[in-house]
Amino acid sequence: MAAPISQTCAAVERSVRERVPPLLTDLYQFTMAYAYWRADRHNEPAVFELFFRSNPFGGGFSLFSGLHDCLMFLRSFHLTEEDVEYLRSVLPPGSDPAFFSFLRGLDCSGVTVRSVPEGTVVFARVPLMEVSGPLAVVQLLETSLLCLVNYASLVCSNAARFRLAAGSRRKLLEMGLRRAQGPDGGLTASRYTHIGGFDLTSNVLAGYLFGIPVAGTMAHSYVTSFSSLEEVWPQSLAPANGDLDSTDPVDLVTLSRGWLGRVCQLLGVEPDGVREGELAAFLSYAIAYPRNFLPVIDSYSVASSGLVNFCAVALSLCELQYKPLGVRLDSGDLCRQSVEVRRAFRACSDHFSVPAFMSMIIVGTNNISEHSIQELNEKENEIDVVGVGTHLVTCTLQPSLGCVYKLVEVRGRPRMKVSEDPQKSTVPGRKCVYRLLDSQGQPFLDLLCLHDEPRPQEGVSLQCYTLWQEQGAGPVTVTPSRVVSLRQEVYSHGQITHPLRSAHEVRQSVQSSLKTLHPRHKRLQDPEEYTVAVSEKLHAVITEVSRGGSSSSSSGGDGSKILLAN
Amino acid sequence: MAAPISQTCAAVERSVRERVPPLLTDLYQFTMAYAYWRADRHNEPAVFELFFRSNPFGGGFSLFSGLHDCLMFLRSFHLTEEDVEYLRSVLPPGSDPAFFSFLRGLDCSGVTVRSVPEGTVVFARVPLMEVSGPLAVVQLLETSLLCLVNYASLVCSNAARFRLAAGSRRKLLEMGLRRAQGPDGGLTASRYTHIGGFDLTSNVLAGYLFGIPVAGTMAHSYVTSFSSLEEVWPQSLAPANGDLDSTDPVDLVTLSRGWLGRVCQLLGVEPDGVREGELAAFLSYAIAYPRNFLPVIDSYSVASSGLVNFCAVALSLCELQYKPLGVRLDSGDLCRQSVEVRRAFRACSDHFSVPAFMSMIIVGTNNISEHSIQELNEKENEIDVVGVGTHLVTCTLQPSLGCVYKLVEVRGRPRMKVSEDPQKSTVPGRKCVYRLLDSQGQPFLDLLCLHDEPRPQEGVSLQCYTLWQEQGAGPVTVTPSRVVSLRQEVYSHGQITHPLRSAHEVRQSVQSSLKTLHPRHKRLQDPEEYTVAVSEKLHAVITEVSRGGSSSSSSGGDGSKILLAN
Repeated sequence: MAAPISQTCAAVERSVRERVPPLLTDLYQFTMAYAYWRADRHNEPAVFELFFRSNPFGGGFSLFSGLHDCLMFLRSFHLTEEDVEYLRSVLPPGSDPAFFSFLRGLDCSGVTVRSVPEGTVVFARVPLMEVSGPLAVVQLLETSLLCLVNYASLVCSNAARFRLAAGSRRKLLEMGLRRAQGPDGGLTASRYTHIGGFDLTSNVLAGYLFGIPVAGTMAHSYVTSFSSLEEVWPQSLAPANGDLDSTDPVDLVTLSRGWLGRVCQLLGVEPDGVREGELAAFLSYAIAYPRNFLPVIDSYSVASSGLVNFCAVALSLCELQYKPLGVRLDSGDLCRQSVEVRRAFRACSDHFSVPAFMSMIIVGTNNISEHSIQELNEKENEIDVVGVGTHLVTCTLQPSLGCVYKLVEVRGRPRMKVSEDPQKSTVPGRKCVYRLLDSQGQPFLDLLCLHDEPRPQEGVSLQCYTLWQEQGAGPVTVTPSRVVSLRQEVYSHGQITHPLRSAHEVRQSVQSSLKTLHPRHKRLQDPEEYTVAVSEKLHAVITEVSRGGSSSSSSGGDGSKILLAN
Repeated sequence: MAAPISQTCAAVERSVRERVPPLLTDLYQFTMAYAYWRADRHNEPAVFELFFRSNPFGGGFSLFSGLHDCLMFLRSFHLTEEDVEYLRSVLPPGSDPAFFSFLRGLDCSGVTVRSVPEGTVVFARVPLMEVSGPLAVVQLLETSLLCLVNYASLVCSNAARFRLAAGSRRKLLEMGLRRAQGPDGGLTASRYTHIGGFDLTSNVLAGYLFGIPVAGTMAHSYVTSFSSLEEVWPQSLAPANGDLDSTDPVDLVTLSRGWLGRVCQLLGVEPDGVREGELAAFLSYAIAYPRNFLPVIDSYSVASSGLVNFCAVALSLCELQYKPLGVRLDSGDLCRQSVEVRRAFRACSDHFSVPAFMSMIIVGTNNISEHSIQELNEKENEIDVVGVGTHLVTCTLQPSLGCVYKLVEVRGRPRMKVSEDPQKSTVPGRKCVYRLLDSQGQPFLDLLCLHDEPRPQEGVSLQCYTLWQEQGAGPVTVTPSRVVSLRQEVYSHGQITHPLRSAHEVRQSVQSSLKTLHPRHKRLQDPEEYTVAVSEKLHAVITEVSRGGSSSSSSGGDGSKILLAN
């Protein structure tokens, strides 16, 4: 049903290039680039790390997403003549003209990226991406990379929480386009909520570009646009199993009116309250799409109109050998109404001997939040498919992830921001990141080591320090049964060096990555905190650099060594 | 400084076409279009209204934005061959092939839009846009128009609240790109927060496309990338007022080290705690941009390092006749720190007789919310410019506006959704919307009338009914001193029929529209509710249609007129 993959990839890359030109960044990236260039430091090798400081939504984990777009962005990074001319107009007058020639030649051929694979379960404070290369270039990339990772990871994590709350049985439909932060926000939401565990989207462009299954039938406006059965045209429908030449079409209006009387009697509904316009809308839709009949039944009143109108049309379709799909509820108490609707379906099935009524689905779509999905596990209900919009795409519980991009090394020397706010301090130095698994194959600790330390050995105990634990706390000893290197090189020399995975593959990783995580970290409320620790050697570097020293050079630190001239 | 306006407009239109293709919508728009087409109803004249149901952020008003993009979208609305082929693959099999030919020829030449002008203060339940035209086409536009209006209006309203909280004196800088819902979310945020009252943006592309003034100097990474004064190169700077041939450059490193000693002594700061790397970073930046010196001074410690390093470099610049701009604070207690910084500036000015230190600005940028801006009015502080990111662009207090698009008329007959949830009911019929002003020129009531009613007369009393008031409440009598028609035709016959206004003009409307609003409606907390009312005639239509009748046709209603065949 989706566009061919190759077409999709090209479309995505083109789209990233158009959506994320190099000017889509903060001005200070260019003022800093100028200052580096002016001081002849622009080509110094530098390393930045991208991470977030706390798990979103008060949860115990996040999912890493957005890497694919980051790679597309890096590959197409280039300033046009117009870009450079605009920059010349906004940078302080008197900037050296040679800087603008430098900008014209910039690309990411000197940049290397090591990254956690897209769709991996990740934790606060673990560096997800390491971006190394010429200082001025890797600095310039900051805002764009953050913009591409932050919301993608946030909304993917949000979707995963909705999926955990819903359990694996219920289908989840994303329908947030109209409430997102503009067109691209909506498209990004559709894409990453699918990766995070949603089954379907209402967003047609997301279906086209990313091959996500699309769904949807009708809005209330369709129902209210009808006022009389005279508007139903054509009025007849050929039976499903006959072919058009041999089987005469049947007048569905007359047939349904017949069924309506019997249904009203069966369900004890007063015929006077049944809306004719609603019946006309259902009939007209059923004649257009006899195999896809799933109307919204709360435009007026479910109990006194929508439900009996649906049953009447659905029974008519069944009589013609079609299989109606079900109904959508979009207001009021969804749980209670779904139970009443199911009861009516059973009554129809029993009374009229129509077994198709036993497999009808009920879709619920009224302002669904993570909390209301959890309620579905506690309150009696018969909802099979849940449609989620606003709370999913705007991430109401926490509308931003807060990824940051911090300098950790320049010219081989570890760098650190020592903030008065300890949470804003950074972990200096280039690192390797390992995930330690226990004998059940469950991750229990992410370990940050210096990049040139030996890899931890499986079955061999090691000492490490929990990150940002209280001052003076001692090391902890752990013995991993398995050790996984969490990051891999994905970009170097201007090329994507690791095969790009399809949305479908990433979606599978999300579920398998979540599966191995212990339930105590997956609890939606009050999860147990997952341990992130640093090796003894890295701990020593942190201690030294935060005191103002520099571990890999004896000449000059950051600190108290300024000789005052006066 | 900005790109020429004509270039900007073309770029915006191209950008809208690329960002909002007709497929960026919900699938049900197309399934409904098919059902309308199949029933030969697709060309029936229909009227939709766009409105929101409650003012955002618990406030008393909203600002209407996004119209410009809506018009661009309408003008370029057209399905490509690939779009149609994709739709064929996702619509239920067996759809009539002639429908896809119909889709290929679709455009908005039959659509008319009447709208509130962009940048106007508006209230819940007032129909902001009226979209009329062929039923299938105006239905298809729903999701895209909502997507373009919802976030634009929300973030513009949020910005206006920040502006109200900050007062008119303080400058406001938007810097949320990295925390927005992807690239376009960030761009939309920059654009509409400027319209809502922000002065500056950090987003370079927003500056390029929309002519918004851009600002920014350096991040912490710039500061932490330096570790020693040896990295400062060049080390010298020519005085501002000399020309390069006649005045020898001065060694700024030596000069600043001299000033540093004196500043430490003056401010009682221990020289041992001063970071050499930070001084190097400030010097290097000052040499690159001597006229734009505004460093971030909290990379290590404001009190024991950043402040004295700044003063030392700034005093050196002053000695060379440059005028440093000020400092940025990005962590900790901004109010307290700004007071300490200002005190230090005064001390330097007095002690060293450097008056430039009296006009230095202090920028604060640490996780600023509406609440923390309000605090600036209550706590002692010296912050001149406030930079806002996350809370502004993600609209943390309420991350979606919830605009809806509802059918109000088909073939001249008023339509209504009568929900079991009264808040979800709609006001039927095509309308005119008037804003009534009192003798002080302040709006006090928005009146919805039937479109063919006479316009309310100035100075003549009229009766009306407050919208959604308690059942049975009587009419109220009001006498407007002035009557303003709130909407105007902006699109018809495929053309934009009202001159598009620049972002700058819309920004001015916002402020003048807000100015006339009575303070009681502008209070950020617990505002007095603005009255929205319906005319007596419209009230009668609501009553009749909600009972299931139809006011303009005697044949057939929505309701209890189905002749049961059995």
